[in-house]
Amino acid sequence: MPELRRDPITGRWVIFSKERGRRPSDFASEDRDPVVASCPFCTGNEQQTPPELYAVRSMGSPPNTPGWSVRVVPNKYPALRVEGDLEKAGDGIYDSMNGVGAHEVFVEGAEHSTSMTALPHAVVRAAVRAFRIRMLDLKRDRRLAYALVFKNVGRRAGASQPHNHSQLIATPVVPITVQQEMAGARRFFDYRGRCIYCDIVRQERAQGARVLLDTKEFVALVPYAARFPFETWVLPTRHVSHFEDSPEAELDQFADALLTTLSRLERALGAPAYNLVIHTSPFVDGPLEHYHWHAEIMPRVTMTAGFEWGSGFYINPVMPEDAVRFVLHGDRT
Amino acid sequence: MPELRRDPITGRWVIFSKERGRRPSDFASEDRDPVVASCPFCTGNEQQTPPELYAVRSMGSPPNTPGWSVRVVPNKYPALRVEGDLEKAGDGIYDSMNGVGAHEVFVEGAEHSTSMTALPHAVVRAAVRAFRIRMLDLKRDRRLAYALVFKNVGRRAGASQPHNHSQLIATPVVPITVQQEMAGARRFFDYRGRCIYCDIVRQERAQGARVLLDTKEFVALVPYAARFPFETWVLPTRHVSHFEDSPEAELDQFADALLTTLSRLERALGAPAYNLVIHTSPFVDGPLEHYHWHAEIMPRVTMTAGFEWGSGFYINPVMPEDAVRFVLHGDRT
Repeated sequence: MPELRRDPITGRWVIFSKERGRRPSDFASEDRDPVVASCPFCTGNEQQTPPELYAVRSMGSPPNTPGWSVRVVPNKYPALRVEGDLEKAGDGIYDSMNGVGAHEVFVEGAEHSTSMTALPHAVVRAAVRAFRIRMLDLKRDRRLAYALVFKNVGRRAGASQPHNHSQLIATPVVPITVQQEMAGARRFFDYRGRCIYCDIVRQERAQGARVLLDTKEFVALVPYAARFPFETWVLPTRHVSHFEDSPEAELDQFADALLTTLSRLERALGAPAYNLVIHTSPFVDGPLEHYHWHAEIMPRVTMTAGFEWGSGFYINPVMPEDAVRFVLHGDRT
Repeated sequence: MPELRRDPITGRWVIFSKERGRRPSDFASEDRDPVVASCPFCTGNEQQTPPELYAVRSMGSPPNTPGWSVRVVPNKYPALRVEGDLEKAGDGIYDSMNGVGAHEVFVEGAEHSTSMTALPHAVVRAAVRAFRIRMLDLKRDRRLAYALVFKNVGRRAGASQPHNHSQLIATPVVPITVQQEMAGARRFFDYRGRCIYCDIVRQERAQGARVLLDTKEFVALVPYAARFPFETWVLPTRHVSHFEDSPEAELDQFADALLTTLSRLERALGAPAYNLVIHTSPFVDGPLEHYHWHAEIMPRVTMTAGFEWGSGFYINPVMPEDAVRFVLHGDRT
């Protein structure tokens, strides 16, 4: 059973999971993979994964057989486990709990492809809808506090499988990064009476220089204080605190905005390794005025070194305005 | 001139520095380097670096010539610049300031060597004393708030030069990671009336299972909630909030403890890439009861992926107690 331990100084939780040590990618450092001979995520190899939790299938095809376009399975090397009660314990100044949670994989597309932009719109839309379906299911589990959906593309971004996929980890505590964002957004709301993300969307649309995509429902922008070159956020223009509270039609628009954004980034940067995360509100909260769900795309084109780890400062060699100009117009300045 | 921008949500500052884009390592991803034909840090090549700020030299040898054992020079590709007044500005909801600061390199050992453990004790002691000398000098500059000393060893840890060296970046704001540690330590102090780091030292010495080295003046331990496999902290057993307030004799003990700790880690792990950072208190503060300077060693033996970036949760496949047992006794469990 994995164990969660809390750093007594910062409050950050760490998941200790011996199973994860077995992942071959743990000691790797190359870039995107070549196509492998036998991919456990390809159609026909359904028996190589644990049994599916959910799938978008053609009428009548039985589970764990071909006929799907999106398939959700438990992670074979889970960071957290669904079984058992949540048990909390103390040890002097330290706190721990057992590693109850969920770790799921969303396989996107039955045929082998390694970039989301190679997938039909309908498959990406189905994947995004599947995120919501799984979140709504996990939300009913009172042991769980949060579900983080994320995507690692390319070995440099930590991917161990090249076939298009996303992941979801549901945790018994709210991740500290989300707590910190929520606390900051709360301070802004208490002071200004507005959602800071709504303000960002407004100011960015007015200024334009950091906007990569502007549609009625979604805006993609390189944030003013981007940590990484070409870091891009995708935000709903309408205020919604919870991803899973967005209606399906809105999530379809999100899928389309995400695809267009990724296409623009890939056209400009080749096929960069990247991480994508969706930040949403905790399960327990009702609709919140001060927090606003969004996706963050973090291309892995630079190294993160001691200064960044030790300070939380990031050094970014590319100004956000230059990044946008380069992606949209190919200008190098 | 570099620019600092503040993320309006989290308060995290990002340094935008086009100069840093030129570093060859920015797009690299291999492991530790081979010895290169011409190393700018080797004795005889003093002209390949900017003129030295400080050096430990044999009597009578002139600056920027051979005869030194530790040499401090400005970084050739600085993240921040010493020149100019600190100017702060706002842009709607955003805040920025110009990139005033210092970025220095401590070359350790005149002959080419790539591991601190290959250096004589006297050179490591001289380097640690040099950290203090530079901090005390920079502290007099009222534009600066903090000095972070760090070390990147191996390309996987972001090093662009293999020759033994450390770096110092002095910033006009206190790094958010240090702010968060200080806030957590302050909460503990307000509640319990004790320094949490002193409590950690006490509990770890009593329990023993996470201690890598225990001397009268310094303890090296794998923290209870280590983020990375074999992460190790080195703490003074005596309460001191500021690194630069430690007397030289104590810093000599720190240098020795650091060398022994690194030797044990390298004996167990081969020659892992790692980052080392020294966390100390801000320049402006007098001695603090609630914060305690320390060093953090972070071996780079696993990948950090989307989940970690997106959540602040870390997944660590190696329990701290197992890491210590493996380093001290070679047990694999």
